[in-house]
Formats: sequence, structure tokens, C-alpha cells
Amino acid sequence: MSELLQLYKKTRSQSAALCEPLEIEDYIPQPVDFASPPKWHLSHSTWFFEEMILKKFVKDYQVFNPHFGFLFNSYYQTLGERAIRTERGTITRPTVKEVYDYRKYVDDHISALLQSPINPTLEELIVLGINHEQQHQELLITDLKHTLSYNPIYPLYKENFNLTAQQNSEKGWLKIDEGIYSIGFEGEGFHFDNEKGRHQVFLHEFEISKSLVTNAEFIEFMEACGYENFKFWLDEGWNWVTENQVKSPLYWTKIDDKWHSFTLEGLKPIEPEDILTHISFYEAQAFATWKGCRLPTEFEWEVAADQLDWGKRWEWTYSAYLPYPKFKIAEGAVGEYNGKFMVGQMVLRGSSTATPEGHARKTYRNFFQPKYRWQITGIRLAK
Amino acid sequence: MSELLQLYKKTRSQSAALCEPLEIEDYIPQPVDFASPPKWHLSHSTWFFEEMILKKFVKDYQVFNPHFGFLFNSYYQTLGERAIRTERGTITRPTVKEVYDYRKYVDDHISALLQSPINPTLEELIVLGINHEQQHQELLITDLKHTLSYNPIYPLYKENFNLTAQQNSEKGWLKIDEGIYSIGFEGEGFHFDNEKGRHQVFLHEFEISKSLVTNAEFIEFMEACGYENFKFWLDEGWNWVTENQVKSPLYWTKIDDKWHSFTLEGLKPIEPEDILTHISFYEAQAFATWKGCRLPTEFEWEVAADQLDWGKRWEWTYSAYLPYPKFKIAEGAVGEYNGKFMVGQMVLRGSSTATPEGHARKTYRNFFQPKYRWQITGIRLAK
Amino acid sequence: MSELLQLYKKTRSQSAALCEPLEIEDYIPQPVDFASPPKWHLSHSTWFFEEMILKKFVKDYQVFNPHFGFLFNSYYQTLGERAIRTERGTITRPTVKEVYDYRKYVDDHISALLQSPINPTLEELIVLGINHEQQHQELLITDLKHTLSYNPIYPLYKENFNLTAQQNSEKGWLKIDEGIYSIGFEGEGFHFDNEKGRHQVFLHEFEISKSLVTNAEFIEFMEACGYENFKFWLDEGWNWVTENQVKSPLYWTKIDDKWHSFTLEGLKPIEPEDILTHISFYEAQAFATWKGCRLPTEFEWEVAADQLDWGKRWEWTYSAYLPYPKFKIAEGAVGEYNGKFMVGQMVLRGSSTATPEGHARKTYRNFFQPKYRWQITGIRLAK
Amino acid sequence: MSELLQLYKKTRSQSAALCEPLEIEDYIPQPVDFASPPKWHLSHSTWFFEEMILKKFVKDYQVFNPHFGFLFNSYYQTLGERAIRTERGTITRPTVKEVYDYRKYVDDHISALLQSPINPTLEELIVLGINHEQQHQELLITDLKHTLSYNPIYPLYKENFNLTAQQNSEKGWLKIDEGIYSIGFEGEGFHFDNEKGRHQVFLHEFEISKSLVTNAEFIEFMEACGYENFKFWLDEGWNWVTENQVKSPLYWTKIDDKWHSFTLEGLKPIEPEDILTHISFYEAQAFATWKGCRLPTEFEWEVAADQLDWGKRWEWTYSAYLPYPKFKIAEGAVGEYNGKFMVGQMVLRGSSTATPEGHARKTYRNFFQPKYRWQITGIRLAK
Repeated sequence: MSELLQLYKKTRSQSAALCEPLEIEDYIPQPVDFASPPKWHLSHSTWFFEEMILKKFVKDYQVFNPHFGFLFNSYYQTLGERAIRTERGTITRPTVKEVYDYRKYVDDHISALLQSPINPTLEELIVLGINHEQQHQELLITDLKHTLSYNPIYPLYKENFNLTAQQNSEKGWLKIDEGIYSIGFEGEGFHFDNEKGRHQVFLHEFEISKSLVTNAEFIEFMEACGYENFKFWLDEGWNWVTENQVKSPLYWTKIDDKWHSFTLEGLKPIEPEDILTHISFYEAQAFATWKGCRLPTEFEWEVAADQLDWGKRWEWTYSAYLPYPKFKIAEGAVGEYNGKFMVGQMVLRGSSTATPEGHARKTYRNFFQPKYRWQITGIRLAK
Repeated sequence: MSELLQLYKKTRSQSAALCEPLEIEDYIPQPVDFASPPKWHLSHSTWFFEEMILKKFVKDYQVFNPHFGFLFNSYYQTLGERAIRTERGTITRPTVKEVYDYRKYVDDHISALLQSPINPTLEELIVLGINHEQQHQELLITDLKHTLSYNPIYPLYKENFNLTAQQNSEKGWLKIDEGIYSIGFEGEGFHFDNEKGRHQVFLHEFEISKSLVTNAEFIEFMEACGYENFKFWLDEGWNWVTENQVKSPLYWTKIDDKWHSFTLEGLKPIEPEDILTHISFYEAQAFATWKGCRLPTEFEWEVAADQLDWGKRWEWTYSAYLPYPKFKIAEGAVGEYNGKFMVGQMVLRGSSTATPEGHARKTYRNFFQPKYRWQITGIRLAK
Repeated sequence: MSELLQLYKKTRSQSAALCEPLEIEDYIPQPVDFASPPKWHLSHSTWFFEEMILKKFVKDYQVFNPHFGFLFNSYYQTLGERAIRTERGTITRPTVKEVYDYRKYVDDHISALLQSPINPTLEELIVLGINHEQQHQELLITDLKHTLSYNPIYPLYKENFNLTAQQNSEKGWLKIDEGIYSIGFEGEGFHFDNEKGRHQVFLHEFEISKSLVTNAEFIEFMEACGYENFKFWLDEGWNWVTENQVKSPLYWTKIDDKWHSFTLEGLKPIEPEDILTHISFYEAQAFATWKGCRLPTEFEWEVAADQLDWGKRWEWTYSAYLPYPKFKIAEGAVGEYNGKFMVGQMVLRGSSTATPEGHARKTYRNFFQPKYRWQITGIRLAK
Repeated sequence: MSELLQLYKKTRSQSAALCEPLEIEDYIPQPVDFASPPKWHLSHSTWFFEEMILKKFVKDYQVFNPHFGFLFNSYYQTLGERAIRTERGTITRPTVKEVYDYRKYVDDHISALLQSPINPTLEELIVLGINHEQQHQELLITDLKHTLSYNPIYPLYKENFNLTAQQNSEKGWLKIDEGIYSIGFEGEGFHFDNEKGRHQVFLHEFEISKSLVTNAEFIEFMEACGYENFKFWLDEGWNWVTENQVKSPLYWTKIDDKWHSFTLEGLKPIEPEDILTHISFYEAQAFATWKGCRLPTEFEWEVAADQLDWGKRWEWTYSAYLPYPKFKIAEGAVGEYNGKFMVGQMVLRGSSTATPEGHARKTYRNFFQPKYRWQITGIRLAK
């Protein structure tokens, strides 16, 4: 079995493994438009292989079900009409069993295809599909956590599965000198188009923290009335706080005067020394201002990365998600992957405890709208 | 086994029978706030027996699960906090299996309770619970149809199960003389508080149609640009039509220039002679105006009912849902059943093909907001 | 000068007199869609005479300005496109001066027309136009009060002009026997189409209060936590209270622990013995329930009217605004006056201190959506 | 008279001069929350002098009216409660005349203050107040245009006053070499805090157009179905186009198959060679993509500025509005001027025909949300 096929199979079973603790019922709901049901993630990542690879590289390929293209396309306008994003939680059929049949059908065809030697274009698409599925694994678990959190009885996903109980290994500040630095992906290996285009930036001297902000530090901010004082907040952030009456990180709730948090192991007391998570860019920025610091830019982060311990939280930067100087959008559906989101979002760097093994890179550019908190996000300060 | 217990058991199994064709996945979604998932209906009608009866009449009764009161209360504010109505579709646990266990647990306790002779208060509450469950059976099937209709692949609920393929048995007009008539429920037997209070009304002479409006007649209205001409519509109805771009009854879609309708048997061509359904009060009223007629009042309907063939559609009347002269709201939770909805809704009379056997009465007052169409509604003209 | 012309002139100057205390600035804003600026009322009532009378009865009549039809039509769809209702507050031109020029131009033409003998159709339309303008006088002053109330500095309209400082002249209950009664307008004289169609209704015995509810009585309800206890409220009313956080009648504000109210004389302390006003149907109904009473129906009200002192408040009834048995919508634009609003609104009977002299009748049917409070509304109890 | 006082007086009379063609009515409405009425601009810029200068530097200064602080504060949370931004159009009092009295009162006090020698802090604040008033002059005229555009009769502001009829003076592309460049304000003279902090950036070689995009070029884009093809648009932009059904630049309307535009001179035909304006960032970006080019970054723009003819349009850049490396928010109210808007907005560089003389600088950073179009915006391409 080729290494590629091995990687393919490992990735595919990892998706199924994530769903192993679920009941059929858990695969269905979509309480908010920005998160999708497990059934959809399993189907959509499969559809990606069928649509982008099998339909093009397998002669006389018969699609598993002609409706699935419509149901499980996400946002690829190039590929025709799609079911409405906000209504994924209403689709009860195909059943979960049929979705697993669909996965098997596509896996069998991909495996057959990878028995013979393949050309580089095909290899590239397989690798893209694998990385795409890994992205959806991270979303699957964070979306699921979000859906379960709506249930007032705090259901348990799995014992001893806590994505958010990690501590810092280092302390103090790292100083980086002023100078011209190279940014962006270089070399062999998989990478997304948005990180391509190695280029120079000039950075002034800066310091960046070796540790991420902890729950204890953030509770200090809360106890100093950080959520009640406009002067720490960007204007948009202040509107967000007041309109949504935000008073704590996502999933936190006070019971008998003690902070608790909903986790995939159920409701747990907040551990002060654990690294803070589930905060928006607005909260990250307000905390930094209150602390007399700031968030790093994505360039500062990338330059410092080799000397930092990262990978526990997606770290908000104070960089907007914009194209690199030589960025070009690819033709066709693949071109819709990243480029069209380059306005209104902020860059997050690093990776998180929900990121599949082997998926992270120091040049990786993740991005979300500044209000979102359901990912495993965190804060690293700079000054 | 007492007659009451027999009726109880029959009603309870009827709910389960309705769900027999379902997949687990179908029990979950709630795409709109006005309709609820099957799992919720099954649980809520069970909770009603537990809350209103077992907790009061069974010594040391242990509730099946202390969370269920919170999860499956509908709108009884008297009984404490409730899960938010619009989020019923997010609750994946308890599982469907646990819900059936809950039903069995409550059924066992009710059966035990009904082994011994019971007092009239308890009997009354059991009968209320049975009627309550029957109401939820009708909602279960109409809500389910609505949810399945969101799926672009038109799933099938069950072959040969079509709630909407009925025709008229009679034609022509029935004339009723001017005079004083008695309205409201009288005598023994179950009835809701809103139909109680036998009282007199004076009616002027009127005529009422022996048949309900058919698809063919409504298509005439559509072809006469009925949906495009404001002059047939009430102002509120015209706003509803234009804001929602309504162009046909609910579930209708044109394929190759031929009208089809989503049914519980899948997508079917419209049969011209079948009785029209899934229309709002606004559409009923506009059709009547276009036809040079009007809708009957609920009093006219009740007076004429003995001479009419009714029971295929809930028939919109031009009566607002208001209290009868001697109406009094009962104390406590039971008092929240009907009275508090007496503003902003229109009365529907009769019953429909989705109404459980034995549930209908000529004095029965159903009511919905004038915009709703997902019930099996229809039009009977008067003049 | 004919009596009709005299009445016309008197009515027209009354509109101008109401605006006498205004600054130009006050003629412009429309903070909410349900209320209109004074400039619009002055123009619209003038346009009504031009559109319905001058264009039809004056040979070669030249409209004052061809744009005004578009700008000042309210809801008459028969008469072509209209400026959007919610944007009346954005129209700065024509200026207020031009609007008065417009009024003079139309008045001159109407006066000329009324010099010669006129036919009954024309007379009827003139009388309709006068009554229409009287309705807009009442709206002009209540809309203006609403707009001024948005200004945090509580501007003064006019000294010694307080529409809401009246007290009851009588006390106790009036008893009316069961029987058949006649309802609706009969005889000569102006009346709207919605009150036409004298017909019989059967009423059961009832009692109706000789007085209207006072501020003191309503404060009792507030102090008994009436606004905080769902059990007094209709479901729709309870949603309205909680969504809008209603805690008092409209325009009330507490200063140094004492209730005050914004009036056309500025901010004034609440006088306990004054008759309550600016309450919604929901509040009226909740108060009645709390008091162990109910609101009268419009039929009960009309039958009792001759023995009551009415005219200080528009009195909410527990009758929905529906057509009388023989109601027919007139052809053309005049037919849009009343009939198309017959769903979703509640009837108010009587008249108020803002109603122009000579405009009230005991058969008059006013109607508003149950949530509205900016009219001079009040509560009369029944039981 | 000192130079500073001269500049003060000139600026202040310029605001009044802009309002000279207005009727009283035009000072009032605020149809949308992002634009304010002329009365508000005149008052707010005056309040700024009173609040930031007179109250601090004039002993025993009596404010003109104690309510005005509440009414005319814009977003300075440091300075206490404010009237709600969306309700500026409802405030009819103070009258326009009173506002001009207020301006005179403040002008008299500022003039008196500037008779004697002043310290640098005061001088700095006066200059800030002057620049602040200049910013509001630009908004006053663009907001006014927006308000007048709501009137279906297209009112005229002033003959021969057309902000948007300009043509390009140059053609072709300017090439800039790769290298390290300095960015940000340096030296004496007024500047805002957001452009301070001279710092280095590394730029790769690029070309920038010497001309701005014309109406003719944009019509080509429209005729090539640019508004109908998702592939030219950022995802957020495509949502904006479809939700708002955008089909042309703001104020454009087709009459007899010919494009016209609402201007301050009334409705005018589009001149093909005039420079395009009133477009959003989304439209600018889509146009650039369609053309196979891109928008410049704000750094590229600033480096090229000395060799470009700019000043006719605010030019959208593909830079998010973010802090410069050494940016620090000032303490107190002045600190709320710029920094708190640094998320979710895009930078515009240059200036426009509505910018007051002497207000522009090549380091000036203007910023708006990407959807806004009511400013005099334009497109300069880069590649």
C-alpha cells in the first residue's frame, strides 16, 4: 500500500473515530449557521473526493447518489446549486447509515485508483482532499461541542476527552530584533494557496510572550470589570459585548459563585492554571489593552514561531486576513478555497488540541470573523 | 381493563404507530419555531401525564428523569422554567430510545393507577391527557410533513398515506333562517374550556356551501392573477403575500408547467378535483372575495354543521378566537390551555384527515394565526 | 356661504390651528413607521380633496404639483404608486410653506366648486373628505406627541394644552338586561362603511362600569407586580411585555421615585385621580383580568352607550375588528378606507380628547393593533 | 488677528456657507444610521470646541445649554451619556436658529480666548477642533446628498455644484522598485494619531495606475455582467450584492435605457469620461479582479503618492485599518478619536472633491466599512 493511500485511509478512519461516541441523534442538529452537523461534515469531505477526483479521474464513474452533490456542496459556486447553508440541520435523509455507505463507496474507489501509479495532479488533489478532511475534523469536533452545549442537561461526549485542559510549559518574553524577514511557505510539501508566495517584510523590534494567557489571568481581567469598561474595547467589540451581554468566555457558567465550563467531558470547574480558550478576537484585544500590551501581527508570530511552544490554541493575531503580495486565485472550484474570504476576517496562527496530527505548520493561516469563539482560540501577548 | 384504560392505551399506541415509518434521524429537526420534532411531541405528551397526574396522584412517585420537566414543558409558565421553544431541534439527548423508555415508564404507572377505581377529578385529567395527546398526534404528523418538505430530495414517509387526497361528496348551498341559536358545548362528555358556556347568538339569514373549495377552483383564482391583485386581499394578507412572495398554496411546486405538491407519499401531481388544502386565512379570505362570497363565521358554521359533510379539512372562519360570554380561565396550569391565546388568532372549525378518530366535535374551536398554512386547512364559502 | 362650505372651512382651519405652535423643524421627523409627520398629514388630507374631488369634478383641473400624488397618497393602491410609508420623515421638500400654498390652492378650488349647487355624490365626497381630515387631526396631534417624546429635553407644544388631564364624572355599575339589540348606524348623517348595516345581536345580561380606570387604580396594578406576573396576560401580551420590557404606560417615567408623564405641556407629575391613558389592549386586558373583570364587547358598549359618559378616551373592547353581517366593500379607492384592515386589530369605541368636535358617534368603530399605545386610549371594565 | 484665529474663523464660516442653500426642513432628517443631519454636524463640531476647550480653558465658563452635551456628543463614551445615534433625525429642538446662536456663542468665546497668547496644548486642541470640523464638513455634504437622494422628486442643492464631474489628467502606469520605504507622518504640522509613528516597510516591485477608473470603464464591467458573476467577488461582497440586489453604483438609475445619477445639481446623465464614484470596497475589488489587476495597499499608495495626481476621490486600498507598529491610544476622550475603530474597516487614501481645502495629506488614513458607498470614493488599480 502506497504511503499516500495509507495517509488517506488513516485520515478517513480518524473522521469515523471522532464520531464513535455519538448517538445517531447527535449527527443531525445545526443550531447556528456557522456550525454544521457531524453528518454533514462526513458527507461533505467525502463529496469533495468524489467531485474533485473520482468524477475526473475514474472512467465511467457512477456517483453514489446524484442528489448528494446538491446536498453536500458547501460554498463552491462553480459547482452549481447548493442546499442552503442554514438548513443543514433539517436534512434527515440520507440516514447516517447511508452516509457511512457513501464513505465506504468512495473509499473503495479511491483505494482502487491509488493501486496504480498516479500522476502529480491527481496526487496533489488527493493530498488537498486529505487536508480538507482534516480541517473538517477540527470543525466537526468544535461544531459538535457547540451543539451539545445547547442542551441544558450538558451531555457527555466522552470521558477523559478534554480539549481544553492544558498548561503552559514556558514563561517570560522572547525578544526579536528589527530587520527584514521572509514570510510564507517555501519548499516541498503540502500548503494552502493563501500561505504561498514567500516574500519579505520589515519588522521593528518586538517582544512576544512565551506563554499563553491562562484562565487565572483572564479572571483577573473579569474581576477588574474588563467586560464593563468600554475603554479597553474596540468600538465594534464594545457593541458586540453590549448587544450580546457577554460577561465571560464562551461555555462558562457560574455555579455557587464558582466558574465552570461546558466541556466534551460535561460540566467542569475552571482550572486557574489551564490555558484560556473560547474567546473572540474582541476579547483577546481588550484583554491585551487592559494588560498594557497588544496582540502580535501574523508576521511577528511567524518569525518568532521557531522559538515558541505553540499548538495548544489558535492564537488571535492583530492582522487582517489579506492576500500576500503575489497571491493569485486558482482557476475553478479549487480557487474558491481561500481567496474569496479575504475581507472582514482576522488571522489566527498556530494550531489547537483539536487540530489533527500532521496538519499544522508555522506558515499556516487560519482565519475567522472577530466575533467567533467556538474554535479552540487563545491569546499570546506582544509588546 | 376499564374502558378508560383501553382508550388510554389505544391513544398511546397510536402515537407510536404514527412514528413507525420514521428513521431515528427524523425525530430530531425543528426547522421553524411553530413546528416541533416528533421526539418532542412524544415526550411532551408523556410529560403531561407525569406532571399533571402521576406527580399528584401517585404517592412517592419518582419522576423518570428530573430534567425532563424542563425539557418537555411547552408553554406552561405556572410549572416553572422551560427550554426555549425555538431550540427543540438542538436537543439530541435523551435519545429516541430513552424517550420510548420514558413512555413505557409512564404508561406502566398510569396503567397501575387505573387498575383501582378512580375519582372524577383524576378521570377528568386522564381524559384531558388523552385529548391533549390526540392534539399532538395531529401536530406530530403535520409538523413532520413540514420538516420533510425542507429536504430537496422529497423523502417518503409512507406509501399510500396521503392526507390530502379527498373529494367532496355533496354540492350546492344550504340556506339557514334568521333566528336565535344556541352555541357551545352542552351535555356530558369531554370538551375544552373554550367551547363551554352554552349561549345564544342571533344570526341573520345566510347560505353556506355544502362542498369545500377544490384545487381546480383555486387554480382558477391563481390563473385570474389572484395572488397579484391587491384588491382581493386584506391589507395584512397583501403584505404577507408580497413579503413572502407567495404564489401558490404551501408545498406546491411547478414542474414542466404542471403543479405538483409535496405529500407524505413524496411529490405528487395536483389532482384538480381533490379538496384544496395548506392555505392561510389570508388566502381563504382573498379567494372568497374574488369569488364574490365570504367565509362563514364560527357561529354560522356550528349552526349549519349538522347538515354538512365535514371532517376533511380544518375550515377557516371569519371569526377571531375570542372568549365566549361566560368563559372563565381555570386556576393553575390547566388554565393556560386555551384562554391565553385569545387574541390575534382566527377560528377554524371541523376537523381534518390528520385528526385522530373520536377527537372531533361540532363545537370544537381550533385556532391559528392567520398566516399559518402547515395544518390541513381548507375553505368553505358562505354568502 | 353654504353650511357645507362653512364646515369645510372650519375643518381646514382647525388643522392649521393645531400646527400654530409648531416650529418648521417639528413638521419633519417620523421616528416610527406607525406615526406620520405633521407636514404629511397636512398634505395628505389636502391630496384627498384634490384626488377624489377636484380631479373628478372640476373641468380641466390642473393639479398643484404632479409629484404630490406620489408623495402624499397613504395606502390607496388603486391610485397608483406611493412613496414608502416608512420614509415620510426623509422628505424635506416640498417645504412647509409650499404645503400651506398647496392647502390654499385646493381650498380656493373647493370653495369655488361649492359656490354653485352641488349633486349628492359630490356632497357625500366632501363630507367624507371633512371626516377624513378630522381623523388626521387626531393622528396629527397624537403622532406629534409621540415624536416630541423622543427628544430627551421634553419640548413643550403649548402651555395649558393637556389632552390627558380629565377625571370621571360618575361611579358604579350599569346593568343591562339580556335580549336582542340593534347594532350599527341607522338614519341620515355621515357614517363610515364599517358601521353600516343595522343588524341584531343577542346579548346576555352584563354590567358595565360607569367610570374609566384611573391612574391610581392602575398604579395599584403595577404595585401588585401586574407587569411581572404572566398569569394576568394573554400569551401575545406577555411576549410583548417581556420583549419590550414594558413596566408602565407609555410616556411614564419615574423621577425621584415619583411617576411623571410626558405631555404636550412638557413633563408633568401623574395625578392619581386622572383617567389612565396610553395603554395597549394587552395592558387593558391584563388589568381587567387582575381586577377579576373583563373588557366589554363592542356590542355591549354600543348598547350601553346612551347611559354612559364617554368621550375622554378611546375605550378598548374585547372585540376583534371584523365585518358586520351585511358589510360590502365599496368599489374603487373609497373601498380601501376600512374593509381591508379587518383582521388582526381590536375595536375601540367612544372617542377621546383629541377627537375633533362633531366627529364622534356611538356607532363609530375605531381600530388598532393590540400593541399600540400612542392614541388616547383607556379602560372601561365589564363583568 | 492671529493666523490660528483666522483659520478658525475661516473654517467655521465654511460650515455655514455649505448650509447656505438649505431650507430649514433640510437640516432635520436622518434616514440611515450612518449619516447625520446638517443640524447635528453644525452642533456637534461646536460642542467639540465647547467640551474640549472652553470648559477647560475658560474660567467660570457657562455652557450655552446644559442639554447640548447630551444631544450632540457623538461617540465619546468618556464624556458621559449620549443621545442615541440612530435617533438624531427625531430631534426637532433646539431649532436651527438656536443652533446658529450656539455657534456664535462658542465662536465669540473662542475668539476672546485667542486674543491673548496661548499655550501649545491649547493650540493643539484648537487645531484638532478645526480638523475635526473639516471632517464634519465633508460628512455634512455627503450625508446631505444621501438624505436628498431619498426624495423621489430629486431636489436640487445648488446649481453648478457637482462634486462628481471630474476627469483624469494622466494615463498609464507608474512602476515602483522593490525596497524598504518609510511610512507615516513625520515633521511638524497637524496630523492624526493614526498616521503617526514613522516606520519602515518592505515593498516588492509593483505598478500603480496614474489614472482613476472612469464611468465608461465601469460600465464595461457592468455590461460584462460583472454584478452577476460571483467569481469576481469576495464572498462577503457577493452576499452584499445579492442581499441588496446591487446592480450599479450608488445613486445611478436608468432612464430610457440611459444611465443617470442623482447629484447635488439634481439628476444628471452619466458622463463616460468622468471619474467613477460612489462605489463600495466590494465593487472596487470586484472590478479590479475582473480587470486582472488588484487594488494597491495603503503602503504602496503612500510611496507612489508624490508621483500621482490625487485628490478627486477617496481611493479604496486593499489594506485593513490596523494600528501602525508604534501606535498608542491617547488617554481620555481624544483617545477615542481613531484607535477604537481599528477592526473591520478598510483604508482609503487621498482625498475627494468634498474634502475641505488644506485638510488632505499623503499620509492621511481615512477608513470605512467595506460596504459603504455614500462617500466620494473611487478606484485606482495596481498590479
